[in-house]
Amino acid sequence: MKHVLQSVAALCLTLLVSLLASAQTPAPPPEDGKLRIICFGAHPDDCELQAGGVGALWAAQGHHVKFVSVTNGDIGHWREAGGPLATRRRKEVEGASRILGTTVEVLDNHDGELMPTLENRQKLIRLIRQWKADLVLSPRAWDYHPDHRNTSLLVQDAAYMVTVPFICPDVPFLKDNPVFMYYTDRFQKPYPSQADVIVNIDPVIDKKLDALAVMESQFLEGGANGNESFMPTSPKDREVKVARVRQGHAARNLATAERFRKELGEWYGQDKAKQVKHAEAFEICEYGRRPSKEELKKLFPFFDGSGGKSR
Amino acid sequence: MKHVLQSVAALCLTLLVSLLASAQTPAPPPEDGKLRIICFGAHPDDCELQAGGVGALWAAQGHHVKFVSVTNGDIGHWREAGGPLATRRRKEVEGASRILGTTVEVLDNHDGELMPTLENRQKLIRLIRQWKADLVLSPRAWDYHPDHRNTSLLVQDAAYMVTVPFICPDVPFLKDNPVFMYYTDRFQKPYPSQADVIVNIDPVIDKKLDALAVMESQFLEGGANGNESFMPTSPKDREVKVARVRQGHAARNLATAERFRKELGEWYGQDKAKQVKHAEAFEICEYGRRPSKEELKKLFPFFDGSGGKSR
Amino acid sequence: MKHVLQSVAALCLTLLVSLLASAQTPAPPPEDGKLRIICFGAHPDDCELQAGGVGALWAAQGHHVKFVSVTNGDIGHWREAGGPLATRRRKEVEGASRILGTTVEVLDNHDGELMPTLENRQKLIRLIRQWKADLVLSPRAWDYHPDHRNTSLLVQDAAYMVTVPFICPDVPFLKDNPVFMYYTDRFQKPYPSQADVIVNIDPVIDKKLDALAVMESQFLEGGANGNESFMPTSPKDREVKVARVRQGHAARNLATAERFRKELGEWYGQDKAKQVKHAEAFEICEYGRRPSKEELKKLFPFFDGSGGKSR
Amino acid sequence: MKHVLQSVAALCLTLLVSLLASAQTPAPPPEDGKLRIICFGAHPDDCELQAGGVGALWAAQGHHVKFVSVTNGDIGHWREAGGPLATRRRKEVEGASRILGTTVEVLDNHDGELMPTLENRQKLIRLIRQWKADLVLSPRAWDYHPDHRNTSLLVQDAAYMVTVPFICPDVPFLKDNPVFMYYTDRFQKPYPSQADVIVNIDPVIDKKLDALAVMESQFLEGGANGNESFMPTSPKDREVKVARVRQGHAARNLATAERFRKELGEWYGQDKAKQVKHAEAFEICEYGRRPSKEELKKLFPFFDGSGGKSR
Amino acid sequence: MKHVLQSVAALCLTLLVSLLASAQTPAPPPEDGKLRIICFGAHPDDCELQAGGVGALWAAQGHHVKFVSVTNGDIGHWREAGGPLATRRRKEVEGASRILGTTVEVLDNHDGELMPTLENRQKLIRLIRQWKADLVLSPRAWDYHPDHRNTSLLVQDAAYMVTVPFICPDVPFLKDNPVFMYYTDRFQKPYPSQADVIVNIDPVIDKKLDALAVMESQFLEGGANGNESFMPTSPKDREVKVARVRQGHAARNLATAERFRKELGEWYGQDKAKQVKHAEAFEICEYGRRPSKEELKKLFPFFDGSGGKSR
Amino acid sequence: MKHVLQSVAALCLTLLVSLLASAQTPAPPPEDGKLRIICFGAHPDDCELQAGGVGALWAAQGHHVKFVSVTNGDIGHWREAGGPLATRRRKEVEGASRILGTTVEVLDNHDGELMPTLENRQKLIRLIRQWKADLVLSPRAWDYHPDHRNTSLLVQDAAYMVTVPFICPDVPFLKDNPVFMYYTDRFQKPYPSQADVIVNIDPVIDKKLDALAVMESQFLEGGANGNESFMPTSPKDREVKVARVRQGHAARNLATAERFRKELGEWYGQDKAKQVKHAEAFEICEYGRRPSKEELKKLFPFFDGSGGKSR
Repeated sequence: MKHVLQSVAALCLTLLVSLLASAQTPAPPPEDGKLRIICFGAHPDDCELQAGGVGALWAAQGHHVKFVSVTNGDIGHWREAGGPLATRRRKEVEGASRILGTTVEVLDNHDGELMPTLENRQKLIRLIRQWKADLVLSPRAWDYHPDHRNTSLLVQDAAYMVTVPFICPDVPFLKDNPVFMYYTDRFQKPYPSQADVIVNIDPVIDKKLDALAVMESQFLEGGANGNESFMPTSPKDREVKVARVRQGHAARNLATAERFRKELGEWYGQDKAKQVKHAEAFEICEYGRRPSKEELKKLFPFFDGSGGKSR
Repeated sequence: MKHVLQSVAALCLTLLVSLLASAQTPAPPPEDGKLRIICFGAHPDDCELQAGGVGALWAAQGHHVKFVSVTNGDIGHWREAGGPLATRRRKEVEGASRILGTTVEVLDNHDGELMPTLENRQKLIRLIRQWKADLVLSPRAWDYHPDHRNTSLLVQDAAYMVTVPFICPDVPFLKDNPVFMYYTDRFQKPYPSQADVIVNIDPVIDKKLDALAVMESQFLEGGANGNESFMPTSPKDREVKVARVRQGHAARNLATAERFRKELGEWYGQDKAKQVKHAEAFEICEYGRRPSKEELKKLFPFFDGSGGKSR
Repeated sequence: MKHVLQSVAALCLTLLVSLLASAQTPAPPPEDGKLRIICFGAHPDDCELQAGGVGALWAAQGHHVKFVSVTNGDIGHWREAGGPLATRRRKEVEGASRILGTTVEVLDNHDGELMPTLENRQKLIRLIRQWKADLVLSPRAWDYHPDHRNTSLLVQDAAYMVTVPFICPDVPFLKDNPVFMYYTDRFQKPYPSQADVIVNIDPVIDKKLDALAVMESQFLEGGANGNESFMPTSPKDREVKVARVRQGHAARNLATAERFRKELGEWYGQDKAKQVKHAEAFEICEYGRRPSKEELKKLFPFFDGSGGKSR
Repeated sequence: MKHVLQSVAALCLTLLVSLLASAQTPAPPPEDGKLRIICFGAHPDDCELQAGGVGALWAAQGHHVKFVSVTNGDIGHWREAGGPLATRRRKEVEGASRILGTTVEVLDNHDGELMPTLENRQKLIRLIRQWKADLVLSPRAWDYHPDHRNTSLLVQDAAYMVTVPFICPDVPFLKDNPVFMYYTDRFQKPYPSQADVIVNIDPVIDKKLDALAVMESQFLEGGANGNESFMPTSPKDREVKVARVRQGHAARNLATAERFRKELGEWYGQDKAKQVKHAEAFEICEYGRRPSKEELKKLFPFFDGSGGKSR
Repeated sequence: MKHVLQSVAALCLTLLVSLLASAQTPAPPPEDGKLRIICFGAHPDDCELQAGGVGALWAAQGHHVKFVSVTNGDIGHWREAGGPLATRRRKEVEGASRILGTTVEVLDNHDGELMPTLENRQKLIRLIRQWKADLVLSPRAWDYHPDHRNTSLLVQDAAYMVTVPFICPDVPFLKDNPVFMYYTDRFQKPYPSQADVIVNIDPVIDKKLDALAVMESQFLEGGANGNESFMPTSPKDREVKVARVRQGHAARNLATAERFRKELGEWYGQDKAKQVKHAEAFEICEYGRRPSKEELKKLFPFFDGSGGKSR
Repeated sequence: MKHVLQSVAALCLTLLVSLLASAQTPAPPPEDGKLRIICFGAHPDDCELQAGGVGALWAAQGHHVKFVSVTNGDIGHWREAGGPLATRRRKEVEGASRILGTTVEVLDNHDGELMPTLENRQKLIRLIRQWKADLVLSPRAWDYHPDHRNTSLLVQDAAYMVTVPFICPDVPFLKDNPVFMYYTDRFQKPYPSQADVIVNIDPVIDKKLDALAVMESQFLEGGANGNESFMPTSPKDREVKVARVRQGHAARNLATAERFRKELGEWYGQDKAKQVKHAEAFEICEYGRRPSKEELKKLFPFFDGSGGKSR
């Protein structure tokens, strides 16, 4: 009997591993009452930059967070490009993902060539449905990079449609439109980014910086706008440069806290808000479900210590 | 210890089932030295019609056969259409698949609107690679239905490209170009369909007819060109109509045997060939690997009783 | 002589009927000095919801109103889809149209897949020209449904171009750019919907509710977001549900009146404005002709009893 | 009474004229048991060149013939182009049409830019259905001009689909797939044009030449490959040039008779065949209904004096 | 020796002339430390209208200014169209260009059909890179003409991407993102045009009006919205009409000065600002480099008499 | 005087070099009565493989030969990809070009993604016109690689259209349709490649092999289907591998001579034909001008020692 069981177990494990290896889209998590969040970025580093902190916070509470890069990032370097770079960057976000406790998927669209097509829209509809998302994050449609703008348009175009049964009838539709929110940015037109929710990421800032540090192609080496001078010339030089990158990333989240200090007060109370150093902010998209503050607190269970599921 | 093993096994099975349930694309079979065949059809019934017999023969030997419908068949009926019809037809081919011992996948493209786009080509490249196909079957590009022609073009466009590492770099490329072959048909221009391989399907003709019978929307009810008069009006009438459908299907395979009697002789010897009643024939596509007769015999292990793997 | 005339008349009528039956696009109305309004919606119910009241008011004065659904609505139900649903919905809007006294056309584009292509833009240019429109209504480009946004973009893209002779040279161009206006909505970004004109629809609110009631697939049965529980289980239950739907629709127009009470005052005077219960509001699109208040009063001849034509 | 009738007749006529003026697509003919033929050409002169003779023969028997130019011909001249040329050419084919007794429609697609898109395919599906065609003619897909090839592909793609109810569900489908045939041409690869039917057009050759003569932009002035030297410099010179054009056109039909003398014999008998001077030939497309010789004789009622309808 | 040199010089000149004649894209100017500005308009007259003054000012200082029309303007007339009109309009902008001292290129895209495709985006990326632009001007994305809006989108989509090496790797990338700015316009939604820089064009207003006068197809004859009444009937009438056109153009720049008098004060000081009659204004696009006021003064070296290069 | 001349010459040379450096499309050669040939291949090595011999022969006689790669070859390697590979391959064909005496241009389209779009067709129309080509070479549309097939379709689609003035009116049209011919290949369906002209390339076989040897990424390293084992491990190993590559290339041209020995006889006479070792063969495309044997001899001036120009 024991042998049989052992064999069955062994077989199962083998099959499992083979399945996991072969499956392109990571299997969605079980429906365990935890929150389910899916974040879209244009390139393999965008989600990490914009939601790496809040992602780590959710993950720490056992919620299910998935980062999706809508392009493969294959022109995101000054010396490398194409499939080899795409492969390198997928490994980088997988590394970051392990640090943050999140899941990651990279879609095989050319970097710099993302268009708001029906095909891409439907890919996103399927991903949101398969993740059974409660919350969907994306960039705003006002941004300096055309891929960012088009990622935003694609997510907007997927909003609501995820609830319509006979579009993409091969994937079960969502009964409720998720809440859709935008990452923050510094663009002012046609209207400035708002902080409808703002989260103190001090508890996980080091984890976030560690995760970003994994993406050497982008930050240490400078990505598309880097050049030879970015490359460390010695272990010592490398240390200096890595430190500079971390500092740059931290500064960005410091600036978010500074800019939205008032909103921090609304969520954390004035006293606590003053002490927040690093923050990530999010704006509600009008095309998803319109959450009450109460619902927002359930989706972002970081304001009173609770971590319960919202639905 | 036994309990631990039991628990592990249970867990594995649970995970396995959940993975299988959630994954859209059926997981590819293990690499066990068996043949791996992937067949493309335009609609959920085309592969079954063209290769249902040979599919059942391969399956009976433990080889891995996958039927892919490139459209979801959502206009393939005179009274029903859209997502509900697509769902019905997916279930039909799943039923057929269980009878034949094959695997099936239906792509969510509108029936009657399939175009030879780059996106569709890349979907097929990925499917062929994921299946690690030794052999790929498709319709010819000369056919009465635009979806059939475009399915053929898409498969032709995927041939060879499956071996190029940096197209679709997210899915491991194939080291060898598979053999690509076409189903047979009756079109004469610009040149008539050839029977480079022809297979006696008498041993499985009933299984094939059973599988086709499952697809009631298409055959019993007449599909896109049916009408009210196709609908059985009584159990008796139904029996009559089902029998007529079976006869029609059998006749098609009888005609193939008749038309290519000479070729049957080349594969089975004259004596045996004379006795073959039902056959399916296939023509080599010049854009895949060019197989020797020896290799063809390994890919179609039906001529001398052997069932070994070819690669 | 009389017989000849009778024969001619009979022949004419026959031809007329045959023409009307065969023509896909309803023939435009005669140029009789009456206003000519064309309204675009994404789905077969959008125009009726947004401009059913004002449409009935215009029609009652003998003006020519056409509602165009830019998609065929073929995924707008939780249980039905495809061509059969499109057919059902076309009949529904034809029914509504008979009640409102308006004309209706449904374009055969898939629901949920409308894209702002050149082909679609040119279809709209032709429709606006053929109707010789004085006024064109459409949704805003800020809306929860991608089809609504794309309908708006397409109409914006047709504005002005309708006056350029050598785009679509097969249809006579308009000498003047029509006035283009948007329906009202509740979206706030990048700026909230404005009520540049607001119309008291109390005189026709019942007619509007009757017309909406005809569209059972959408309102009684819940459309894409309905489910089994929407279906009436008895004549009594049906009555209750129909009443609830009417109430919901009325509430929407009540809210418009409430929200734009100030603007109502500007058009009707404070006293009269206070008594208005149901209203429809419209915002001027900057890409059409810029009408003076005087011209607006001619286009919306509802404020002082007159119903004269404006051009 | 008489006055009433007169008024009704007058009104009917007015409405009729206004309808005819405003309708873009000419209304299809009544269903009177006569044959219904629709011919597609890429440019406004292609149908006339390829089927002007047979068109005149059908028309003389009261059958309904429609010529459709799939592009507007707007680059078909060495000095003129764009909308003004498109307008000129539409008038030319309308003139030719009046001589031949056929109907004509010109689609507003740019000349030289025709692509085999889904939108164009669906336009053709609708036209074939609206005409309730028994027979559809088009160029072959092997031809020197990309617009000719794409016209052929579009017609091939429409074949069969005209019988499928839920593609273009806004236009009633055809119960039977029409017979599809190709015009003849001199291209040899991948196989030479065949004369499955060949028609003696001697009885109408003058009518055909007259109709072609109307298209001065193309033949007198040389079309896209003309130049200043084509332009007549005096009435005398004009006469000479017009005569040369007629001779050229006649020569083309003489060559067809010469090339397919054997096939002429099969249809007319050897004796009669020898006397045929001008002919037009047609090849059966495998994607339409496969007509027997008997059915062909009904579709081309020119071989034994009969002119009855075939269906 | 002298002869050899003469021969070499002659050869060089010959080659040079032949190169200049044959090259489609005008060769970019030498890198001589002067400013490099590239301006995009949708039609051959848009750049001249929006930046003809500032263009003449830059040119007078020896800076390098290129005007690009993204369409060929081939429907921009009420009587002419197609290639002949495109040719006429290219000659018109070449004439204007000679007056202003600028360079000009017209892309061969159909007027009225410009779409924000990847191909068009990449054409613009190449043009900006080849010009090694310091400053890029374009319309805003809020405008009455779809071609204007799409020109704006295409330029926005090119911003930043010009700095990414491996998009369009066949043209050397720019190390720095240029400054991108919008022309001014009168549209108010979603926010009104701003005058981040405003330039007194009084010194060149006559040159600008002269340049615009060259474009007779557009202004004297009325362009797409003209008609027979625009055509001068006598030399005297022509004089009157030309004068009226000049006045209209001047009025537009007068209105700009009036509207942004405050901003003129910020750049010229209150006293000088009051005297400015004609002005052109520009708004900073957030997707290019964000210039300081100091950098703006270098890019627009018109405020203190200097004309130095900024980089 | 001499100094002035020297300065002018220097200036000219400087300008020339700067022009040549900056111009994307190499300037077309002067019209000197020599033949003008343009060859299209899908990837940077296809023209060289198919027409490297005949190209060298033409060049040796002073004729003007241009090789165009329609894609940039950016997935044509097993380890490298993207822009860096495209750059490497452009340099390789430039090197090959210097050896052969030909000109080369590489279009920036992704390898493996070439589609027969209107944009690509028009690019080719412009290139053929700018080169004022007498003869155009391309692959056949029957070939294992989708990019090869699409290159063929694009060239076919450009044929004839190069003579139509108002397509691409920005580039002067050709008065005569060039002769279009296909490279030879081994595909049999729908009909085998024919040798309408066959050329003895023995005089330049070493030059051709030298030119191919420059393309190390493709041949020494194995291109897309190579792997680590292709890489030379020592100078000795390199020599061996280079020799093997040369042998392989030579064998291909040996096989062409062998296969078309009969046709060689028709062009060279039986005796001479027997001695030919290496050959390149070409088939006439029916969509270009139909050359007589006399004209072919002028286009391929290799059969009787003459090298005169044909037009």
